[in-house]
Amino acid sequence: MKDCVKMASSTQFTKDLCTPAFTVDLDTVRRNSDAMLDRFLRLGVQLRPHMKTHKTIECADIMTRGSRRCIVVSTLAEASFYADGGYDDILYAYPVTSDKVQRCAELSEKLSLFHVLVDNSLALQELKARPLKQGKVWNVWLKLDCDNGRVGIPHSDPAALQLAKEISEAEGVELTGIYAHCGNTYGCKGEEQIKAIAQETTSSVLQFVEKLKAVGIQDVKSSIGSTPSCSHPVLDMAMLSEVHPGNYVFYDVQQMLIGSCRLEDIAVRVLTRIIGHYPHRNQLLVDCGWAALSHDGGGRLPTGYAIIDGHPDLKLVSMTQEHGRVEPISGKLDFSQFPLGSMLSLLPYHACATAMMHPVYIVHSKGKVVGTWKPTRGW
Amino acid sequence: MKDCVKMASSTQFTKDLCTPAFTVDLDTVRRNSDAMLDRFLRLGVQLRPHMKTHKTIECADIMTRGSRRCIVVSTLAEASFYADGGYDDILYAYPVTSDKVQRCAELSEKLSLFHVLVDNSLALQELKARPLKQGKVWNVWLKLDCDNGRVGIPHSDPAALQLAKEISEAEGVELTGIYAHCGNTYGCKGEEQIKAIAQETTSSVLQFVEKLKAVGIQDVKSSIGSTPSCSHPVLDMAMLSEVHPGNYVFYDVQQMLIGSCRLEDIAVRVLTRIIGHYPHRNQLLVDCGWAALSHDGGGRLPTGYAIIDGHPDLKLVSMTQEHGRVEPISGKLDFSQFPLGSMLSLLPYHACATAMMHPVYIVHSKGKVVGTWKPTRGW
Repeated sequence: MKDCVKMASSTQFTKDLCTPAFTVDLDTVRRNSDAMLDRFLRLGVQLRPHMKTHKTIECADIMTRGSRRCIVVSTLAEASFYADGGYDDILYAYPVTSDKVQRCAELSEKLSLFHVLVDNSLALQELKARPLKQGKVWNVWLKLDCDNGRVGIPHSDPAALQLAKEISEAEGVELTGIYAHCGNTYGCKGEEQIKAIAQETTSSVLQFVEKLKAVGIQDVKSSIGSTPSCSHPVLDMAMLSEVHPGNYVFYDVQQMLIGSCRLEDIAVRVLTRIIGHYPHRNQLLVDCGWAALSHDGGGRLPTGYAIIDGHPDLKLVSMTQEHGRVEPISGKLDFSQFPLGSMLSLLPYHACATAMMHPVYIVHSKGKVVGTWKPTRGW
Repeated sequence: MKDCVKMASSTQFTKDLCTPAFTVDLDTVRRNSDAMLDRFLRLGVQLRPHMKTHKTIECADIMTRGSRRCIVVSTLAEASFYADGGYDDILYAYPVTSDKVQRCAELSEKLSLFHVLVDNSLALQELKARPLKQGKVWNVWLKLDCDNGRVGIPHSDPAALQLAKEISEAEGVELTGIYAHCGNTYGCKGEEQIKAIAQETTSSVLQFVEKLKAVGIQDVKSSIGSTPSCSHPVLDMAMLSEVHPGNYVFYDVQQMLIGSCRLEDIAVRVLTRIIGHYPHRNQLLVDCGWAALSHDGGGRLPTGYAIIDGHPDLKLVSMTQEHGRVEPISGKLDFSQFPLGSMLSLLPYHACATAMMHPVYIVHSKGKVVGTWKPTRGW
């Protein structure tokens, strides 16, 4: 791998690059990041970008415009990685469990701001059982389920208000904010549907904050997120304290189909080499299997497991660990157009899943490799 | 992650283990490995185990009974990792392409034996264009497609014999062997179907070796592989030089359904913690998403994306990056049986795909953590 990267850096981008390779277009990343930062600067809402898609310091630096503050992570491995990398004000947006309380406590004591997420009373008891040193308090966000159907207490369930009260009254604990993920935007097609869900989620969260005020719980922040909703925000989102999208820095085919972005906003590819010609089955073989692309999307695109850049007539029909089978959507393949050893460029269905398969990203700008990024992983 | 492993090693296996965790039962690994070694020792056939499933030194040591020789790898990253770890006689069983010739040459010059795979004339030309130093020759295996439909020239195609001749006549190159993967055994149900394909593949390869002899090409080895065929070998496989299965060291639900192994032969699990109770949707949430399990299998098992050990009535119905939704196959869930923070143990559909998601494996024996293994990755 080390050798692979060396070659990529020292030679022409598309010819000698060791494949399969996950490539990141730095200019598109910067454009996507700037657009999101500017969008919420205009709305007067703090952007707290999510790191789960890329998990690198370099991309985080772009997403935070160098402030190295105010991020969300999905694993404690990410939290530690960013804390060690000089980041602060980190929200670990995942239900805290007993096996992780001690590490969360250490991060809370080390950083100026470390936030945890809670959606049940047991988790609160576990935090209380490990009081923080140095006079610090646990910064707790209550997770609400605003019809997303994953983590969180349903926003209209009286238990949500009850738990918010428990948190706000607990010793050594502060109810910092209300957190909701509008993951149900992933079922949308187009801006109108996205905005409808963004509106519903925003309203549910803001109404909940009003309910808190009515029972005397003041100064509680509010945050919603998802790349679709933050790519097409509704005006009411200006009343939120924060938003926390993540995928937008790369975007992908899934986001394009939802309507979050255009094809030209997708910053990442898997470059793959043609390793076999098999005319008797009308197929090319490429060196990208699920080990380099992931199975995400299940091959249900008209073009299979990915879009093959510049070849809308080709389909990635199946993959094994290190092999992909490519064939025309219809008709006979002209093999002379696809010489052995030449490259195809795959637009991933889901950038988060594809990035996770790669220990190194090849970063390029204006056709030249300009660096490599190494993500963290694990939990 | 470092902290996670530390905790796992110093405390009780199932209580404080940081989840999600990929666990390996060392005793089952040893039993699976010994069974395969003994099976082919009795048949008088060299076992060349494939490393692609686990990619660790420790497991390779078990699979080679400490000889550290005679292995197969699927990536050059693996080849370098094992060469650096003191391994020799390594077969890189993947079509060699221009971007990898230099690294293959260096491995060939460094090791006493390094083998490459070829199925087209262009690859042969590229090897010839980089003659090896120190009087060494390229050890080339010709890949035959024996109705598997992935890499290789169809065994009955006259082009296969033609390429074999070209390789054997090329300067600085030796035709070391004929290699076939009977991946079509993955479509089988039961020993009888597996054996039928093992027989066909074996016969095709042996007949091809006879054709070589008929044109004066002697002393060419033969190898077939796949965990199903090597778990249920046919007698004619005794006439092969080598076999190269890999998954058998872990096995998985897919192999059990094919008929390669029994449930008790599956050595690996993903341990996951219950992080949410959601009675209004009759669901538990667990901290294993596709980031820890992979999407392999597509959720098509009656129990969804995995089998939940000891709970045949539960189904892992869907996953996002870090979350899994679990519900009963039918009826109402008794949440009191599944306390928050308690663990479930998932049997993966495909161990190769699940192992690849983890930077560290927690290795246990007789209920105690006995170590951690760290796999290599990349290309």
